[in-house]
Amino acid sequence: MQFDNKSPGKDISEDDLKSKFPLASKKDPSHKTKFSVAGVEFGGKNIPVMAGPNMVESRDFILKTAEKIKSIGAHFLRGGAFKPLTFPYRSEKYYETREEGIGWLKEVKKEVGIPIITEVMEERFIDLVADTSDILQIGTRNMQNFPFLTACAKTMKPIMLKRHYGASLRDWLGAAEYILVEGNNKLILCERGVSVPHTHRSTSRFLIDLQVVPALQEISHLPIVVDPSHATFWRPWVSPMTLASIAAGADGIMLEVHPDPKNSAVDPLQPLDFQNFEELMSNMKKTANSIDRAI
Amino acid sequence: MQFDNKSPGKDISEDDLKSKFPLASKKDPSHKTKFSVAGVEFGGKNIPVMAGPNMVESRDFILKTAEKIKSIGAHFLRGGAFKPLTFPYRSEKYYETREEGIGWLKEVKKEVGIPIITEVMEERFIDLVADTSDILQIGTRNMQNFPFLTACAKTMKPIMLKRHYGASLRDWLGAAEYILVEGNNKLILCERGVSVPHTHRSTSRFLIDLQVVPALQEISHLPIVVDPSHATFWRPWVSPMTLASIAAGADGIMLEVHPDPKNSAVDPLQPLDFQNFEELMSNMKKTANSIDRAI
Amino acid sequence: MQFDNKSPGKDISEDDLKSKFPLASKKDPSHKTKFSVAGVEFGGKNIPVMAGPNMVESRDFILKTAEKIKSIGAHFLRGGAFKPLTFPYRSEKYYETREEGIGWLKEVKKEVGIPIITEVMEERFIDLVADTSDILQIGTRNMQNFPFLTACAKTMKPIMLKRHYGASLRDWLGAAEYILVEGNNKLILCERGVSVPHTHRSTSRFLIDLQVVPALQEISHLPIVVDPSHATFWRPWVSPMTLASIAAGADGIMLEVHPDPKNSAVDPLQPLDFQNFEELMSNMKKTANSIDRAI
Amino acid sequence: MQFDNKSPGKDISEDDLKSKFPLASKKDPSHKTKFSVAGVEFGGKNIPVMAGPNMVESRDFILKTAEKIKSIGAHFLRGGAFKPLTFPYRSEKYYETREEGIGWLKEVKKEVGIPIITEVMEERFIDLVADTSDILQIGTRNMQNFPFLTACAKTMKPIMLKRHYGASLRDWLGAAEYILVEGNNKLILCERGVSVPHTHRSTSRFLIDLQVVPALQEISHLPIVVDPSHATFWRPWVSPMTLASIAAGADGIMLEVHPDPKNSAVDPLQPLDFQNFEELMSNMKKTANSIDRAI
Repeated sequence: MQFDNKSPGKDISEDDLKSKFPLASKKDPSHKTKFSVAGVEFGGKNIPVMAGPNMVESRDFILKTAEKIKSIGAHFLRGGAFKPLTFPYRSEKYYETREEGIGWLKEVKKEVGIPIITEVMEERFIDLVADTSDILQIGTRNMQNFPFLTACAKTMKPIMLKRHYGASLRDWLGAAEYILVEGNNKLILCERGVSVPHTHRSTSRFLIDLQVVPALQEISHLPIVVDPSHATFWRPWVSPMTLASIAAGADGIMLEVHPDPKNSAVDPLQPLDFQNFEELMSNMKKTANSIDRAI
Repeated sequence: MQFDNKSPGKDISEDDLKSKFPLASKKDPSHKTKFSVAGVEFGGKNIPVMAGPNMVESRDFILKTAEKIKSIGAHFLRGGAFKPLTFPYRSEKYYETREEGIGWLKEVKKEVGIPIITEVMEERFIDLVADTSDILQIGTRNMQNFPFLTACAKTMKPIMLKRHYGASLRDWLGAAEYILVEGNNKLILCERGVSVPHTHRSTSRFLIDLQVVPALQEISHLPIVVDPSHATFWRPWVSPMTLASIAAGADGIMLEVHPDPKNSAVDPLQPLDFQNFEELMSNMKKTANSIDRAI
Repeated sequence: MQFDNKSPGKDISEDDLKSKFPLASKKDPSHKTKFSVAGVEFGGKNIPVMAGPNMVESRDFILKTAEKIKSIGAHFLRGGAFKPLTFPYRSEKYYETREEGIGWLKEVKKEVGIPIITEVMEERFIDLVADTSDILQIGTRNMQNFPFLTACAKTMKPIMLKRHYGASLRDWLGAAEYILVEGNNKLILCERGVSVPHTHRSTSRFLIDLQVVPALQEISHLPIVVDPSHATFWRPWVSPMTLASIAAGADGIMLEVHPDPKNSAVDPLQPLDFQNFEELMSNMKKTANSIDRAI
Repeated sequence: MQFDNKSPGKDISEDDLKSKFPLASKKDPSHKTKFSVAGVEFGGKNIPVMAGPNMVESRDFILKTAEKIKSIGAHFLRGGAFKPLTFPYRSEKYYETREEGIGWLKEVKKEVGIPIITEVMEERFIDLVADTSDILQIGTRNMQNFPFLTACAKTMKPIMLKRHYGASLRDWLGAAEYILVEGNNKLILCERGVSVPHTHRSTSRFLIDLQVVPALQEISHLPIVVDPSHATFWRPWVSPMTLASIAAGADGIMLEVHPDPKNSAVDPLQPLDFQNFEELMSNMKKTANSIDRAI
């Protein structure tokens, strides 16, 4: 039996560029998608920062966090109301705040005046989330839920598609094509860590893949955000990996910031506190400037 | 900052067994779930075989294939009508036959008298698929589509949950809990290959993980099926890896069989032809007997 | 800049077979290397079994173990005197027994009458080890220590080359070429587990790669042994994975067997005790017979 | 059988720090090793740059390259005379220039006045290489060749230990202990890419692991260099990943630079040309300054 070299399927070859990624691939080397969301440009010189807690824990909690986050300079408030949790058991009442959490985000958006990005997990909640969230965030576990991608795309809202932690760039751009083919071009990609043999600490699950940033910039016109918090799963590594993400060419940064990280409803090992975040913002600006970009 | 050894998250530790997997874990060493689907027992001494083409390409095609598959001894006809494809572009009319394909399966089931297993991809088609398919197959890309798992579970139909190619056993059993917690205990797990650094051939994407078979049998009472066709992606490796799956303790085998593999609608490198399948069935019986099981 | 598809480097493509592996690749589909070591044939219908402790702990210990191992039916006694340990610290006197351990093996070989396989780690000990060991075992960490491979090859003794846990089949066969090019054709390859994202238990480090068995049998004439003990690192998985190795087509089995596994000098989680080994030998024979081979 | 959570072995837990890494781990949070080689400090504020071709192809070639490299600002000339090649076949006369290549490096060092770093592969050549090379480079494939590590350490020359592409941080620091335990503290670690499931291009073999930089800085006092050329294996990704390495906290950078990359004796896809290197040096300085370091 003959080997067939034509369809490797693990990564991307020259032939794939045109045939598999007609919409996600660059038309020419300078091709780059730019668009604005709530007055914030993606794909340009500036690097938007999305910061906030893992979970929208309560109305008061998210209001105070949003004010602080905004005052430090974040462009978007991130925070989850719907959360895809590995196990179906909720040990605390605020593990998912769901419709109520979305309601709090809506109030906070108005009161604080900061754009929102939050995850949507099911088709039946797309309208609810889209009414509040400036960007529909599609999580790692839904990256290849194709009917759901199509339904999100059809809203014509901006979308941020997180990479599955086990997906190749090829798989990820294939999923992007499902969104682009609906005519929705306001698409942002987000790297958030991948499964690899070694993550260095016994408590970290993923390795941040920064090589995917130049790999994507080389062949695609889509803006790419990096989320070092979920990728590293370990607070002391978040700041250096954020600066590294910027230096690698990331078009945006997503960070987990919590007023009291040790008491975070989920994943207490990774959030920055406000002081960490403020220092990091200052350093991010310097690193961005060093490569002729800005925050 | 202190390390926290309590929540590794990559794999399974002793503490996880009770807290994370109250329903999927064994109550005692001999605990094993057994149930029958269309008269075929899962979880017992016998090893059911599910065979058929990747795609339900046409009515005539699936009818003839089903007759042959049944005559060779398969217990279930497998065949996809709804297919999660990496790219949204369909180059041939029969890439997905969707509702029409399900209709053909329904006719074939009646005419040939063989139980059916086929994939369901969206909540809106669950009833349609459940009306024909004896087992609802949930594919690798939907393994952590939790609302969909819940919706499938609520039908109380038997379910086969394929492992995501990037998922840990921990993630997979977490997804299983979402189904079990609905009171649906007719759950089969299916290993179908994982993403690893090396797959030996430049055209193979996955490595078959047989270590997961004893790992699962040690801690869980759920039956486990192995699909060597999708795992290896290469015809010459399917037969030896099928025998290895049985020797490792698999409770069922899923195989891709096509009348004319080179002209298979998708993935022509992996299907067995009828003669391969007939020889393999004969060998599977011998290997099953060698470990006091049967086909 | 153009992509270059000609040299993927991660796995093996059609073009590589002739250019990279002129000696390790098959001349025709039935090409298979057979040779005898101490009267035991490798590469034929029979499947040699190499069993014994991780460490040659003392003279008395290895003598009694060898007698028992032989009486149960092993063809070779395995046991390490020189051990490549991850850390340079030896907490117990018998961590490495070195020249003294080799001396004990020599006595045992004579007294018990069982062939020996033990690891050689340095060029300066090749003659010493070769004087006692019937096969020179080259460990995972030395797989690409090319000058050492050459030095071992030049002895013209039979060699067993273990795969590095991070090496591709391409890398491994490249290392094999270094031995074959010296005119030493008595070469056995040994799979012993690879580093992958998930190993199922927090205490297991590797995943056994059985897909490499048919992958190797398809393109190479060299016999392949599998070592399920080091691969799984967990006693309860060793027996099923040994049977799976045989069903996958392994040409030999290496097992860690210890009179008192919990008190093994190293790696107490993996060895079988004598009773486990005796039961497994009986089962291995049945599975071997089921595929027309024998033990 | 009980699970044992005490010895995970894949990554590093709190307990490992003291017991496994008594010499490589930090005594306190500010503990950092600093030492000078040929007047260049490692482990301090400044970030040394090591640049040059993969192979020392000829006397004239390396002389001219060294002059240019120095004039652009590199602190060390890198270049291989002894090369561990995956296959034993040398298609061109200059694949390894061996003793002759070391001789050319010695002349160039004197004539151009630039310190040298080159790989040593065998114990018998340690003295020869140590006579010319200011740092003994130990390659990825020898990372766990423990007797060789010990022999190199005993020279008391500065050593750069490259991480094996399949090794955990745990394995790597274990190898470092073998050097440190000999009393040789002039040790630099070098990350050069790891094997993972996806590398994005079908021609790239590794993923650069920048997460290991803060992971190492957190627990160890040893300086860490990053080699983005071997890691990415693709010229367009080298510059962004070099800047990312600096932003992540790397203590040094190793780069492959060739006067005519397409005609490089080996690996033509990865070297920078002189103009690329000059631009990158300018950008590296800016990024280093942004994090209060310097080049």
